[in-house]
Amino acid sequence: MVSKAERSNARLRPHFKTHFSAEVASWYHDAGVTSCTVSSVDMAQYFYQNGWKDITIAFPFNRLEMPAINKMAEDATINLVIEDLNTLAFLKDQSINRIQYFIKLDVGTGRTGLPLAYDFADLTQGSEKVQFKGFLAHAGHTYKCSSNEAIIQANDHIIPELHKLKSKYGGMLSYGDTPSCSVVPEFSGVDELRPGNFIFYDWMQYKITSCSFEEIAVCMACPVVAKHADRNEIVIHGGAVHFSKDHLDNGYVKNFGVLVELSENGWKQLDQEHHLVRLSQEHGILSVSDPALYEKIEIGQIVGIIPIHSCLAANLMGSYLTLDGKRITQMPKNTFV
Amino acid sequence: MVSKAERSNARLRPHFKTHFSAEVASWYHDAGVTSCTVSSVDMAQYFYQNGWKDITIAFPFNRLEMPAINKMAEDATINLVIEDLNTLAFLKDQSINRIQYFIKLDVGTGRTGLPLAYDFADLTQGSEKVQFKGFLAHAGHTYKCSSNEAIIQANDHIIPELHKLKSKYGGMLSYGDTPSCSVVPEFSGVDELRPGNFIFYDWMQYKITSCSFEEIAVCMACPVVAKHADRNEIVIHGGAVHFSKDHLDNGYVKNFGVLVELSENGWKQLDQEHHLVRLSQEHGILSVSDPALYEKIEIGQIVGIIPIHSCLAANLMGSYLTLDGKRITQMPKNTFV
Repeated sequence: MVSKAERSNARLRPHFKTHFSAEVASWYHDAGVTSCTVSSVDMAQYFYQNGWKDITIAFPFNRLEMPAINKMAEDATINLVIEDLNTLAFLKDQSINRIQYFIKLDVGTGRTGLPLAYDFADLTQGSEKVQFKGFLAHAGHTYKCSSNEAIIQANDHIIPELHKLKSKYGGMLSYGDTPSCSVVPEFSGVDELRPGNFIFYDWMQYKITSCSFEEIAVCMACPVVAKHADRNEIVIHGGAVHFSKDHLDNGYVKNFGVLVELSENGWKQLDQEHHLVRLSQEHGILSVSDPALYEKIEIGQIVGIIPIHSCLAANLMGSYLTLDGKRITQMPKNTFV
Repeated sequence: MVSKAERSNARLRPHFKTHFSAEVASWYHDAGVTSCTVSSVDMAQYFYQNGWKDITIAFPFNRLEMPAINKMAEDATINLVIEDLNTLAFLKDQSINRIQYFIKLDVGTGRTGLPLAYDFADLTQGSEKVQFKGFLAHAGHTYKCSSNEAIIQANDHIIPELHKLKSKYGGMLSYGDTPSCSVVPEFSGVDELRPGNFIFYDWMQYKITSCSFEEIAVCMACPVVAKHADRNEIVIHGGAVHFSKDHLDNGYVKNFGVLVELSENGWKQLDQEHHLVRLSQEHGILSVSDPALYEKIEIGQIVGIIPIHSCLAANLMGSYLTLDGKRITQMPKNTFV
């Protein structure tokens, strides 16, 4: 991703909401990355405390968190995201130190942001302390794609529109979800890229065609606790408090995670897909239709499951174990200290 | 619930997987409760360290956690759940201290457990250290009910079957999910009841008819960060990392949480239901079709949202704030210390 950003003449500002970890962040630092994206002020504070001094909080600015933002802005570049004039006025009134802001665009996802046809003139009027930095967009609808062509097409619609805004209003363009950044060969005229999930990828990204199976870098190790031969189901300790309840749904069965074969050096894809088909708080129900494989999996064994959504599973697990047996920690979450 | 257990001549052994908190557990203790249920060995250790010395781990026994179980069994009554002979043999071989076990029954949920018609004779053969305690059942299919009558009917099918097993094999009967324990007036012949969620209830329980709205005792306080008048949507800071992705689904829209009016003494139900209709990692999208209400809700304000599933939201939030402003902590989760 560093090379792709270089080829595109763009800054890589990776999103850290997938890994939540200062140690993983340090891998980026070793690759020359000095700026990052986060999705909450808590997360900004954690990475700020771990030496990151150029942080974009890619979530609509929350007025109630102004004090924490002012504090970090004393010696860090803090970039916020806004989408209305009242919020901009509040920010101008309440900021103590220099703060930069992006205008959030809705480029087709329908979650947050303003439409491309909006008249942005007033919103680009910052102040001495509160400076307009540019436009920020997240093409979240690429998560509904299922081919490289579809992802590229979605981007072909968006990027020329971003260029028009930049020409008209100035500022820079901050862009780039993981599917787009994984698949689009080059982003010309985009000033920075913010992919996050690619650090691990997951089964959803594999299905979107963002990555190959071999690029998936997280796997859940789940103990087998019961077997039900009458319905080819294996019960694992791995539930909603481990995986979250994110899933794929083909209309008649749900997929909360995919069985892989654990090996000494990691894990291997099986010839056939076997899914976690139901989750409760602690239980996961793995449907194993292949009789030979069903027999092979024993109670007391650990099976490998690729999560559907690595960000949410990582958040729930709270740390990582590397294949070398090393523990990698994450930010403490919701501790309210 | 204490009164209902007394009326039923049953022990109340509440499930602590909803609140995760030694302080909340102490409220039970104050009401005379001395035994509890948990859903993982981690959780057992936390409550054990907080003085609970009679704990049922209501999850299929995981062989890999035998050392922690042996340790607690030194001075606590630890009750496990098993459902196959191999696991029982393992337990007999590996247990150091006295351990009791329940046989898990599947009374219609299809998650874990053995069918009622199973021949349990061999499974009831414990040893000096590993003692058969009885049968444990969880009628999880009551979560699909939508009236008191349906919940009572489900129980009318199950309870006589449990009595038959008790007569035939001996041991005690451990039973009782929150919907059943909330609705069935009395459980005769059942030896202990294990409801958990009732400590807070939630929107799902309200829909099941387990509780009234006024009995729901948790609410999420979510900052409003953006508004989109063109689609009557309000963006809050409250996403999958706060609520989980559990939801109700009526076939065309999803409901991840329900808006309430915050008041000085708590919260009030609105005349009309307004739902969180989409969640991403940090964002929640609240659909507010009532124009007057939409206007009233302002960016920078905090709105109240009743979670669909309080257990998962509590797990994610990590602590509670009481209406008096007091912080109630939970067990540390996935810390791997």
